Amino acid sequence: MSADPLAPLIDDLVAANRILAHYGVLDGFGHVSARHPRHPERFLLSRSLAPELVTAADIMAFGADSEPADGDDRMPYLERYIHGEVYRARPEVMAVVHSHSPSVIPFAASSVKLRPVYHMGSFLGAGAAVFDIRKRFGCTDMLVRNRAQGEALAAELGADAVVLMRGHGFVAVGDSVPVAVFRAMYTETNASIQSRAIALGGEVTPLDPGEAALSEATNRSVVMRPWTLWRRKVMGDG
Amino acid sequence: MSADPLAPLIDDLVAANRILAHYGVLDGFGHVSARHPRHPERFLLSRSLAPELVTAADIMAFGADSEPADGDDRMPYLERYIHGEVYRARPEVMAVVHSHSPSVIPFAASSVKLRPVYHMGSFLGAGAAVFDIRKRFGCTDMLVRNRAQGEALAAELGADAVVLMRGHGFVAVGDSVPVAVFRAMYTETNASIQSRAIALGGEVTPLDPGEAALSEATNRSVVMRPWTLWRRKVMGDG
Amino acid sequence: MSADPLAPLIDDLVAANRILAHYGVLDGFGHVSARHPRHPERFLLSRSLAPELVTAADIMAFGADSEPADGDDRMPYLERYIHGEVYRARPEVMAVVHSHSPSVIPFAASSVKLRPVYHMGSFLGAGAAVFDIRKRFGCTDMLVRNRAQGEALAAELGADAVVLMRGHGFVAVGDSVPVAVFRAMYTETNASIQSRAIALGGEVTPLDPGEAALSEATNRSVVMRPWTLWRRKVMGDG
Amino acid sequence: MSADPLAPLIDDLVAANRILAHYGVLDGFGHVSARHPRHPERFLLSRSLAPELVTAADIMAFGADSEPADGDDRMPYLERYIHGEVYRARPEVMAVVHSHSPSVIPFAASSVKLRPVYHMGSFLGAGAAVFDIRKRFGCTDMLVRNRAQGEALAAELGADAVVLMRGHGFVAVGDSVPVAVFRAMYTETNASIQSRAIALGGEVTPLDPGEAALSEATNRSVVMRPWTLWRRKVMGDG
Repeated sequence: MSADPLAPLIDDLVAANRILAHYGVLDGFGHVSARHPRHPERFLLSRSLAPELVTAADIMAFGADSEPADGDDRMPYLERYIHGEVYRARPEVMAVVHSHSPSVIPFAASSVKLRPVYHMGSFLGAGAAVFDIRKRFGCTDMLVRNRAQGEALAAELGADAVVLMRGHGFVAVGDSVPVAVFRAMYTETNASIQSRAIALGGEVTPLDPGEAALSEATNRSVVMRPWTLWRRKVMGDG
Repeated sequence: MSADPLAPLIDDLVAANRILAHYGVLDGFGHVSARHPRHPERFLLSRSLAPELVTAADIMAFGADSEPADGDDRMPYLERYIHGEVYRARPEVMAVVHSHSPSVIPFAASSVKLRPVYHMGSFLGAGAAVFDIRKRFGCTDMLVRNRAQGEALAAELGADAVVLMRGHGFVAVGDSVPVAVFRAMYTETNASIQSRAIALGGEVTPLDPGEAALSEATNRSVVMRPWTLWRRKVMGDG
Repeated sequence: MSADPLAPLIDDLVAANRILAHYGVLDGFGHVSARHPRHPERFLLSRSLAPELVTAADIMAFGADSEPADGDDRMPYLERYIHGEVYRARPEVMAVVHSHSPSVIPFAASSVKLRPVYHMGSFLGAGAAVFDIRKRFGCTDMLVRNRAQGEALAAELGADAVVLMRGHGFVAVGDSVPVAVFRAMYTETNASIQSRAIALGGEVTPLDPGEAALSEATNRSVVMRPWTLWRRKVMGDG
Repeated sequence: MSADPLAPLIDDLVAANRILAHYGVLDGFGHVSARHPRHPERFLLSRSLAPELVTAADIMAFGADSEPADGDDRMPYLERYIHGEVYRARPEVMAVVHSHSPSVIPFAASSVKLRPVYHMGSFLGAGAAVFDIRKRFGCTDMLVRNRAQGEALAAELGADAVVLMRGHGFVAVGDSVPVAVFRAMYTETNASIQSRAIALGGEVTPLDPGEAALSEATNRSVVMRPWTLWRRKVMGDG
C-alpha cells in the first residue's frame, strides 16, 4: 500500500550517478552516496558498478563501519570508507561524491592550489586542500581502503566542501544530493577555467574569501535551477 | 483572429536560449533578453529557468526598473538588472546575452586582455574591458543585483559590443537577437583561440582596430548564415 | 535517360561539406569546392550557405573569373576568389577547402610555425606559410574579396598543400575531394597536437622534410580508409 | 551444431575497435588485435578498415610472420608487423592496440616523459619509453612496415605495458582484450591530465614506482567495471 519512503532519495541518487557520468565528472569509476534519512549512521551507495549503469535496484545500505548492512552480499566499491568516514566526521553532510574528473586531477598532482576563479566555484572558499595518502600511510595502491584511511581523508577535508586526493581525484560533499552534485560539477568546471587562466600568463585574481562566502550563500538558493536541467537530461522528467 | 505580433521575436528568444545552451555558451545559468519592439522601455526575458528549458510560455516582460511588468509574479532572474540598465544606456541595443562561458572567464580572471585574433571576433575591436564589481561596490556575492550595479556595468560596457565581468562572466549586446547571439558565440570561440595562440609561446598578432572595424561591418552582412544553421539545430526549422 | 555525369562529384562535394562540419573543421562559415571535371577552367561551389546545410541543389558553377556561370543569380560566397585563383595557379589541384578551424587559427595569429608533428600531418612538409593580407593590401576586412587578393594568396601557397591566413584561417588543396578533406581534417588535428606538444615545455621534434615526403607518399594510398568512415557518418552510405 | 569457439573473442575484438573509436582513442586509423587462443603463434586482426566500421566478418588470421593465414587475400593493414612481433617477444600478451590518440602524440614528439599522474595510469610504471624509428632505420615513412621494424619496436617496449612511437602514436598491450583496451583508454586520459598538470606551472608529482606497482595490481581486479560500460555503449549489450 505505502510506497517506499526511500524511493525519492534513491531516485535522486540514481540521477546523480547518471548526471555526473553524462557530463564527464565520473567515467567508469567514481561513486555518489546519500546519508540514510532515518538512520543517520547509515548511507546508501551503489554496488560496484560504473555510475552510468546504476539503477535503483543497485543501491545498497552500509553501516557506520562502511560495511554492507542487512547481510547484502553484493560486491561493494573498494573505497566505500571515503563515504562512511565523511558521514561520521560531518553530521550535516547528507551526500558525498568521489570523482576522478579530468580538470581536477592536475591540481591533485601539482603544487598549484585550486581556487575559486568565478562565482560558481565559490564553495572552494580559500582553496581546496590536497590529501596525500603517502604522508601517513606510506606506499599504497592510492585507494582509501579502510576506516583509518577514510578518517584521515575526512580530517584533511575538515569543514570544507571539497578535498583533493594526490594522484587520484577528489571528494565533494553537500547537505543534499543536488548540492553535492552541483559542487562536483563546478569543481571540474572551475578547475578547467583556472587552468586556462593560468595559461594566459598574466596575473590571475581568484575570488577573495569574503566574496566566496557571500557568493556561496547565494548559490545555495539557485542549486535547483541546473539540477532540474540535469535531471531532465538523464531521467527524462521535469 | 490576429496572431500575437510578439510571437516571432519570442520564438527567436527561445531559439537564442537553446542555441547558446546547445553550443555550451550557457550552461544551467545565464540568460538572453530582447527589447520590447513596441514599448522600448520594456524588455522580454525568461522567468528563472535553465536556458535550455526555456519555452515561449516562460518569457516575462520587465519594466524600465527591471521589475516584472503586468503583475507577473513568477520568479525572475536575480541579475535582470544587467538587461534593464544596458537597454537604458544604449538605445540602439535590441538584445543582450549574459554568459559564464568557459573560455571567456579566464580573461575575466586575468590581467591579459581579450582581443580579436581572427575576423569572426572583430566586434571585440580594441579589446574587451573588464567590469570589476569590487571597485565600486566592495565585497559582494559577485552578482549584479540592483540598478546601481547594472548601471555601473553598462558604464563599463560603454559603446562596446562586449564587457567581461571579473570572476563571473560577460555580457554581449547587439541590435537584434541574432547579432547578440553571434557575438556571444564568437566571444567564446575567439577567447579559446586567443588562449591557444598565447600558449604557443611566440608573438601573437591580433587584428588591428582598423581591420576589426572593416571586418565587423562585413560580418553584419553574414550573420544570418550561421543563425539559420543554429536555429535548424535546436528548433528543427529552416 | 542518362544520369548527370557530375552527380558523383557533387555528391562527394556535399559529403565534404557535411564531414568538415561534423568534425568541427567548418562551423557556420568556410567552404569546399571541386574543379569541374570536363571544363577545367570552372569550379563547383555551394551558394552562400552554412556548410552543414549544403545539398546537391545548392552547388553552383563558377567561371575562371570566380563569377557565377550560366547566369546563376543565387548569392555566392564573398571569398570565392580563393578557389578560382588557386585553380588557375595550380592545374593539378582538383579540390579546395577554406576553413576557420579552432586549432589552426592560433598558428595564423602567432610567430610559431605549423609543422608536421606526426605522420598524418606529413603533407605540411617543412611547415605551412602564413599569408598576411596586410602586407600587400593594407587595412582590409581580412577577406579575400577579389582576384588580386586570391592571386596573392595562391602565390603564398606556392606548391604546398596548405597555407594559413593571418587573423582568419587556412586553405588546404588536393588532387581530389577526399584528399583535400583529409588534409583539412589533419591540419586541424596536427595543429592541436603541436600546440599540446609545445605546452609540455620540452624540446619538440617534428618530422624532418625527408620523413614527411616519404610519409605523404604512403598516406596517399590510405586516404579512402577514413573517407569511407566519414561518408558513412554524414551520408549514411558505405 | 557447435558454435564457433572463436566467436566470443572476435566479438570482444569488434567491441574493442568500436569502443576505442567511440572514445576518440582511434580515429580512421589504428587497430586492435588478439592472440589466437588455440594457435598462439597466430593473431586475429581486421582487414584494412577504419576501426569504427569493423565487424566480425572483417577479422582475419595472421601467422607468425604477420602475413595473412589460410590464403586470405583481403587487404591487410600495412603495420600488422607491430602485432606479430609483439606477440613473438611477449608470450603472455594476448591483445595489442596501436593508436594515434591526440593527447599521447605530444609526448611522442617531446622530450618530456609520459608518467602516471593518477592511479588509473599506474600501468605506465616509471614512465613510457619512446621508440624512434630513425635511430636504427634512418629516414622512413614512419610506419612499422616489416618484421625488423616490428622487432625493434617490441625491443623498445621491453616488459612494459605501453611504448610511444616518435612522430606517430603508441602501442598498448595486455593479457586480455579488456586489459589492452583499458590501458589504451587510460594512456590517453593520463596523458591529457599530465599535460594539464604541467601547464599549471608548479611542481608535478607523479606516482612513484612503488605506488604504481601496487595500484596496477589493484586495477587488474576492476577492469571489467568500465569494460561492461564500454561494451554497453557500442554493442548495446550488458
